[in-house]
Order: sequence, then C-alpha cells, then structure tokens
Amino acid sequence: MPRLSAEVELEVPFHDLDVLAVAWHGHYLKYFEIARCALLRKFDYDYPQMAASGYVWPIVECRLKYVRSARYGQRLRVHAELLEYENRFKIAYRIDDAASAVKLTQGHTIQVAVDAKTGELQFVSPAIVFEKLAKACPS
Amino acid sequence: MPRLSAEVELEVPFHDLDVLAVAWHGHYLKYFEIARCALLRKFDYDYPQMAASGYVWPIVECRLKYVRSARYGQRLRVHAELLEYENRFKIAYRIDDAASAVKLTQGHTIQVAVDAKTGELQFVSPAIVFEKLAKACPS
Amino acid sequence: MPRLSAEVELEVPFHDLDVLAVAWHGHYLKYFEIARCALLRKFDYDYPQMAASGYVWPIVECRLKYVRSARYGQRLRVHAELLEYENRFKIAYRIDDAASAVKLTQGHTIQVAVDAKTGELQFVSPAIVFEKLAKACPS
Amino acid sequence: MPRLSAEVELEVPFHDLDVLAVAWHGHYLKYFEIARCALLRKFDYDYPQMAASGYVWPIVECRLKYVRSARYGQRLRVHAELLEYENRFKIAYRIDDAASAVKLTQGHTIQVAVDAKTGELQFVSPAIVFEKLAKACPS
Repeated sequence: MPRLSAEVELEVPFHDLDVLAVAWHGHYLKYFEIARCALLRKFDYDYPQMAASGYVWPIVECRLKYVRSARYGQRLRVHAELLEYENRFKIAYRIDDAASAVKLTQGHTIQVAVDAKTGELQFVSPAIVFEKLAKACPS
Repeated sequence: MPRLSAEVELEVPFHDLDVLAVAWHGHYLKYFEIARCALLRKFDYDYPQMAASGYVWPIVECRLKYVRSARYGQRLRVHAELLEYENRFKIAYRIDDAASAVKLTQGHTIQVAVDAKTGELQFVSPAIVFEKLAKACPS
Repeated sequence: MPRLSAEVELEVPFHDLDVLAVAWHGHYLKYFEIARCALLRKFDYDYPQMAASGYVWPIVECRLKYVRSARYGQRLRVHAELLEYENRFKIAYRIDDAASAVKLTQGHTIQVAVDAKTGELQFVSPAIVFEKLAKACPS
Repeated sequence: MPRLSAEVELEVPFHDLDVLAVAWHGHYLKYFEIARCALLRKFDYDYPQMAASGYVWPIVECRLKYVRSARYGQRLRVHAELLEYENRFKIAYRIDDAASAVKLTQGHTIQVAVDAKTGELQFVSPAIVFEKLAKACPS
C-alpha cells in the first residue's frame, strides 16, 4: 500500500506568539493536529468517523524537534504522513516555511485504538481501518 | 437568599503572555471559568452535576472590561458572584492583583439551561437549581 | 470616510471543542482576532505596523453574544467592521456559518492607543491612524 | 552537584478537556512549563532572569508519553528534574495523579541558550548558569 500523506497551509496568528514574538512551542501540536485531521480525512477516518466506528484513538506519544522559530503572519506548510497503521497510527510531521520550503519543525505522534465501550486497548488496528485504507488507496 | 460568591487565586503562566509580555486578553475567559466552577461547586452544581441533572448550560453572553494588564508570575485573585439564577445564571467577575487588591479586570457571563435530550432552551431554571441553592444557602 | 471591513473564513479544529463537542466559548476571541488583523491589514496598521508607529493598542473591552454553537469541521465566516477610529478602535464582529450564512456569534472589541515609551493613554488616535486610513480609503 | 527538582500541583480545568472528556494531549506542554518555571526559580533563572542575563532559551525538543488520561477536576502533581545543564537544559517531567501517585504522563524538554543580541547559539551554557546553580546548590 502506498504511503498516505496530506498537506495543509496555515498562518501564525497573533495569539500563538510568546514574549519573544515567536510561536510558543506548545502550539505546534495544534498545527500537527490540523494536518493529522486532513490525513485522516483522506481515508474517511477523521474524529467523527472514529467515533462512529466504536473506537477512540488517544495520542500515546508525541515528539517534536524545533529547528527554526515561526513569526507573526508567517505562512506554514504542514505535511503529515501515515508511517504505520497495522497496530497503531504512527504519523510523521514536517512544518516548512511555505514561501521558502525551509524546514522549521518536525515530529511524530503515535495513537492507538481503544474500544469506546469496554475501554480495552487494541493491539491490532480494527478491521475498519484496513477497509477504509483499501478503499482510499486501491492498489 | 444571600448572594453566593467564590474566590480563587491563580498565577499568570508564561504561555498566557503575548508579545507585549502581558496576559493575552482572551485568556481571561479561562480565569473567569476557574472562578465560575468554584462558585458552581458551592451549591454542588458544577459541570459533572449539570450533566447528571440532564441539562447543559451554554454561555450565551460574555462581557470583559480590562483596567490594568497582568504580567508574568503575577498572582491574581478572581472573584465570582451569582447575580441571577431564577431564569438563567448571570455571574459577575472581578480580577484583582492578589497582593495589592488593585482591580485589573471585571466582567460577567450569562448562561442558560438547555435540556440535554431535546435541545430545548429553558426559560426558567430547572427545579434542581432551586433545590441545590436552598440546600447550600439555608435561610 | 466609508466603513472599512474584512472577512475571513476558518474551520473549527478538534482542539477548540469542549466536552459538549462544540467550540468552547473562549476560543471565539481568537476568531475575532484573526478577522481583526485582516481588517487592520486593510489600512496597513496590523500589529507589526502598530509597534513600528510607537503605539500599542491593548483591548480594553470585549463583548460576545452566542446565538448558535459551532461544531467540528464547521466552516465559519468571520466579518469585522471598523465602527470607530477617531479616539479608539471599536470593531464589530459577526460569525456566520459559511455555508448557510446563519448567524452564530456577534460581538465587539474596543482598544485604545498607548504610547509604547511613556505608557501614556492617548485620548485621540495618533496622526498615523488618520494618514493610513486616508491612504486606504481615498474619498 | 545534586540534581535539582521541583514539584507543582494543578487541577485539570474545564477548558482543557476535549470531546472525550479528558485533557487534550497538547495541554500537557503547559503543565510541563509550569513545573519547569518552578524548577528554574529554584536557581533564580526563570524567564525574567534569563532575559536579564542576555540569553533566550528556546525549546528545541519535546517528548511526551501518555500512560493514562486526566479528567475534569483531577489534581495532578507535576515533577520536573534538571538532567543536564552544562551545554543545554535537559529537563525530565513526570505527571502523577496527586491522590494516588499513579503515573499519567512523562516526558522531557531540551532547550539551548541563544545570545539575545547576536542570535548565536551557545554550545556551552553561559557562565551565569554555573554561578546561579552553585549558589542554589552549595556542595
């Protein structure tokens, strides 16, 4: 199966800046999330569809590396790529300056399926994930 | 019935500061909310009890007046007072510098009961509000 | 001088939702701000230009009225209009569902000029405001 | 030199909850920051003192592992420990349920000194860090 990816563009708003006039480091998890949702939509499995499928997918790990800071009004391109899906979702992110393509930040998140009723952790992704991915990426 | 009120103290964290090194104006609605929850707990009707009672209480109006700005590490005292409860909750807020009692911000919020099942707006507060308030404030 | 206005579109992200699956009321001040900055850019007086002009413009009053709640992924159209500029900026906002144009929220903010060096409040807007507005809206 | 550490307690506020009624994963970087600032204050080198010393200390890496989720009103104990300081600050965090001491989250941040005037990255921590630490932790 080919690797799914998605890209979104966003602009650093005033309320994301800290005292040093750069985007506060914690806000990047929001930027990651916006790209992650765009990626999940590519195979019709964004948050509403997750809920409808009877599973929640909590984030169990995040990693972020900050290379360059982002300033007010700067256009960012956020790229998300599905690295693993069989047992968990591992998604890699890269944030570039939209104009120059210079890398600002990279990272990944890992999330796992939990049965919404029983609260049981799933060690293999539910069947619906494979079905939805097969439909989105016909070989 | 005497007017119910509550007071909380909090400290301005680094991530609430904007470029001008003062708390960004939108964060004060969080400070209001922390005091509002303390007030609602005084009559055992905080968010979990609202949900259990079958009603949600969306905010339908907010007003804020900013007199002085707040800086990093500053201790704030946030005072919330229940002005109306018969048909809606109208709560007034005042934020003072904790050390000097100088006023920084004031405002109010209005919220109304909505039946969680039918989505119907209630023009009179549900009976449970009067019962809980009577228990909390015996005359 | 004709009334300046600006409009932006945005989408409700997952991290803005509260327990009730609607955008938490405090986040609307971010939506207002994004439209306010678009409006300020129309006469070349957004935050960077304010700083360069030697003035800061703290928000001294906010008002919000919530008519309908906003849900995950909903497209919002945020309209901002400059109501006053002679002595202070009074800006009115209206947030509509982008698809149906049904009104969700409205409000206003008031901000005043403060000399960045002396900290003195200006009771009349600085000359640069009138110059920039005249250039942006030639009569 | 003994390892410096600090501990803060905080409560999960309503506005930090997501649709699933647990603290949204990105907010933990705020909880980490509150504990980090408490740790930096232990050797008198919190953000205001950093600025006064002529250095800024941007975060260049974050890692978070989420073991259990946190719910509304839950009391959290956030522990921060200075693992490295010679060339950079590496700080480890652990968030426990305050009542039961059960671990909820752990992680680390890495930050480096940058000369505030020249923007030059420092590969060795500035002398003031060693002086402040020696004063705070006399051997």
